[in-house]
Amino acid sequence: MTCNGADAFIATLAACGVDTCFANPGTSEMQLVAAVDRQPGMRAVLGLFEGVVTGAADGYARMAERPAVTLLHLGPGLANGLANLHNARRAATPVINMVGDHATYHVHFNAPLTSDAAGVARPMCDWVRTAQSPRDLAQMGADAYAAAMEWPGRVATVIVPADHAWSAGAAPVAPRPLPPPPRVPDAAIAAVADALRAADGPVALLLGGRALRADALHMAARIATVTGARLVCETFAARLERGAGRAQIEKLPYFGEMAAEFLAPCRTVITCGTEPPVAFFAYPDKPGTLWPADAQMLRLATLREDALHALTMLADLLNAPEVPEGVQARAIPPAGDRLNAHAIGAVLAELMPAGAIVSDEGLTASAALFDATMGAAPHDWLMVTGGAIGQGLPVATGAAVACPDRKVIALQADGSGMYTLQALWTMARERLDVVTVIFNNASYAILNIELGRVGVQNAGPKALSMLSLDHPRLDWCALAAGMGVPAERVDSVAGFRAAFAAALQARGPVLIEALL
Amino acid sequence: MTCNGADAFIATLAACGVDTCFANPGTSEMQLVAAVDRQPGMRAVLGLFEGVVTGAADGYARMAERPAVTLLHLGPGLANGLANLHNARRAATPVINMVGDHATYHVHFNAPLTSDAAGVARPMCDWVRTAQSPRDLAQMGADAYAAAMEWPGRVATVIVPADHAWSAGAAPVAPRPLPPPPRVPDAAIAAVADALRAADGPVALLLGGRALRADALHMAARIATVTGARLVCETFAARLERGAGRAQIEKLPYFGEMAAEFLAPCRTVITCGTEPPVAFFAYPDKPGTLWPADAQMLRLATLREDALHALTMLADLLNAPEVPEGVQARAIPPAGDRLNAHAIGAVLAELMPAGAIVSDEGLTASAALFDATMGAAPHDWLMVTGGAIGQGLPVATGAAVACPDRKVIALQADGSGMYTLQALWTMARERLDVVTVIFNNASYAILNIELGRVGVQNAGPKALSMLSLDHPRLDWCALAAGMGVPAERVDSVAGFRAAFAAALQARGPVLIEALL
Repeated sequence: MTCNGADAFIATLAACGVDTCFANPGTSEMQLVAAVDRQPGMRAVLGLFEGVVTGAADGYARMAERPAVTLLHLGPGLANGLANLHNARRAATPVINMVGDHATYHVHFNAPLTSDAAGVARPMCDWVRTAQSPRDLAQMGADAYAAAMEWPGRVATVIVPADHAWSAGAAPVAPRPLPPPPRVPDAAIAAVADALRAADGPVALLLGGRALRADALHMAARIATVTGARLVCETFAARLERGAGRAQIEKLPYFGEMAAEFLAPCRTVITCGTEPPVAFFAYPDKPGTLWPADAQMLRLATLREDALHALTMLADLLNAPEVPEGVQARAIPPAGDRLNAHAIGAVLAELMPAGAIVSDEGLTASAALFDATMGAAPHDWLMVTGGAIGQGLPVATGAAVACPDRKVIALQADGSGMYTLQALWTMARERLDVVTVIFNNASYAILNIELGRVGVQNAGPKALSMLSLDHPRLDWCALAAGMGVPAERVDSVAGFRAAFAAALQARGPVLIEALL
Repeated sequence: MTCNGADAFIATLAACGVDTCFANPGTSEMQLVAAVDRQPGMRAVLGLFEGVVTGAADGYARMAERPAVTLLHLGPGLANGLANLHNARRAATPVINMVGDHATYHVHFNAPLTSDAAGVARPMCDWVRTAQSPRDLAQMGADAYAAAMEWPGRVATVIVPADHAWSAGAAPVAPRPLPPPPRVPDAAIAAVADALRAADGPVALLLGGRALRADALHMAARIATVTGARLVCETFAARLERGAGRAQIEKLPYFGEMAAEFLAPCRTVITCGTEPPVAFFAYPDKPGTLWPADAQMLRLATLREDALHALTMLADLLNAPEVPEGVQARAIPPAGDRLNAHAIGAVLAELMPAGAIVSDEGLTASAALFDATMGAAPHDWLMVTGGAIGQGLPVATGAAVACPDRKVIALQADGSGMYTLQALWTMARERLDVVTVIFNNASYAILNIELGRVGVQNAGPKALSMLSLDHPRLDWCALAAGMGVPAERVDSVAGFRAAFAAALQARGPVLIEALL
């Protein structure tokens, strides 16, 4: 039995286990809309802007560990989703994009929406294909799934000409068996073990990617127990499983000079699931690499190798005890009297339920939030992986779709929140269990810091106006109300505590605007 | 005297006459921020999302006929602005983008924000260059200006490595003299005149680009007077000067079958400033070309040729009278009792002041709005040129910056308005004189029509949910209030009339949410 290309493509994705479609369709995607409609068990989640759609797909897959599919409208629609695909790619998240395009025979007319959709995709995607026929489109469902699941994840994009979607003669394609994650060669792990045994002085184990999951961190903590290594999380991690009862782990600071100072005492730095740390930006007369020049740099595993296996084998080679020391204790720091990032973090540490998922785009607030919540009940912490702001609310949206039984907490700076504020509407429509906390300081605060760091002196009012969100100050409660999310404004620690406690009791989206 | 690359670049642009910078900067653009700050007479306008920035640059230059410069943050920031660059390119608008990128020596570190910025630019820009040195960056200011002004306009993008911006040794470069617009060869115009004299049956003169300005339309009306030609505006025009006292002109309908029916009686179709019309999308079993198969197709001028010159010469060759017939009379249609696009158009026709600028992203409302305002006081009508929605509010923003003494009216569908709603904040901050009318029908209404047109039968609730903006219904008054724009909701013709009249009396941004 044959069907049209769209139905075959969607059925193939469904057979691969894809059950969620984040969509912002247009006319050229109507057959794909219809195919999603007809596919039993596939959920369709509408976003009112493509950056919401792609960011939600990222958040979904960070939690689900399998891809959702996005539905985007030709080159310009894909373009609107690129920034969060950049973040997803940097997070090594599995994502499948389906991008409708003009019918093949319509392209040469150069109608207004004509563009090079594959060219738009290429800079931000790992794998880009254009379907060549309705049958090929079905095959591409299986191929895209395999590409997206290339361990631990890739961004795969299929360009779907409208005539391939609506023409008959296709049939679903069977999923391709996935290979296991690539393992680090035994000899390489043994070499790290030897180097560690011979190492003199402090050791840092810098962890990223899948090395930040609880199981891998347990092995890292075992290694730390015998080597005295500090466990360090990369600055922008896709997903860190942390909190009380899990391995104690610090985070490498954002500012390069602070990161370099942090690592300065280390004589040995082992990377696992990440690369040696570099500065986020270049600055005049500041170094780009952040590790001590005379430190021994050892690579245990790359982002694309099986970190859990490597850490387990290394722990065993080092005869590390099964039960590590350095387990994080439950801890609630004093909140203090002033409403700021630390105070909010302290309230989070006190109240966050076990299993919470935090989407952190707090930017200048993030370091204090991270530190204060170290001893919170066990939770997941999702960060902005690619530096493209506007990730926070969409990732929270997707995580909530993936994990309907877990409380999601979006910690959102005001400036970056504005890039993809439309996510609030999707939270409302899908009744997602997300508490959004907006840090309203009416400023691109990070840029006011960076202005000096790049060597700009005596910035004038015009420059400062480009870094300010004041005049007018954003009213996030009104914005939330406009999209159907109940909201409350607080300006005191007690006020925040009460609002946050109430939000945790409720189900469904709530926004708390914290005036800082 | 030498300066750093950023100062030399901005000073060069200023010497070319660029006096407006629409900006959404980040760390890697701080030297450019400082350079704009130091440049006397250059205005900086902050947008809270890059699609606002690029769309505003489009709207600005459609009115000013010279480019603004945008300031965007690396590949992902540029990506967020691409959709409206696509529209600007289709509008043949002059735009200069400056995109900060990592310092050249920082790229190989593959820091989180690293991407192929030039690759991001290429699909949506006409001209893309990466500065090779601080001195080269200054030269690129002059080159980009010349590229953007390639008649009638191009999208030019300069990628600015941060070290070229901050390093010394550069100096401003003199503007390059601009060539005049290319003229259609006399013989080609004469051939059209001959063909017209010999033509049998109805003639349509399909006009686009610069042929839609009042001076060119006057010539077109002269031609119509002697040939009986219908004057037809392309479906998506960058800027049409119309209204009472100007040439009478119809618009080619959006839906292909309606456009084909519109042109069916024509035996001769002359294009000037545009190409022969094609369907916006392909549909199964519907034609892509919209002119009658047996009609004579004549090209008077392309988009990139001097339409005014060609029309003037053609009118003279045809001995057309200096004063044409077919001048549009002042006319106000009856509004009727129900608040809908026609009624709103009728109120606009009655109340719009002379010199108003209309940014039309009404989509399903646009045809009725256009028809009803035919006899309004003379005004400019700006349309969505590339089909990438989210143009309307940013273009209104930019037009208002370019023309502070003219009233700007944004006619905005609700669904497309959500893509770049952040424009409202810029309107508030800059106190721009824009009346935004939101057509709130809680639906991607156009897609509900298109669903059937592409042959989807029996769409299920999941498909329909992807085309609906209900649950929750957007509250545009709240959204506007959240960004500092006073707003009012109306659900009757009288209510709209009162609100619109009051908005015209006020100065500064106002939003009217029309519940349809």
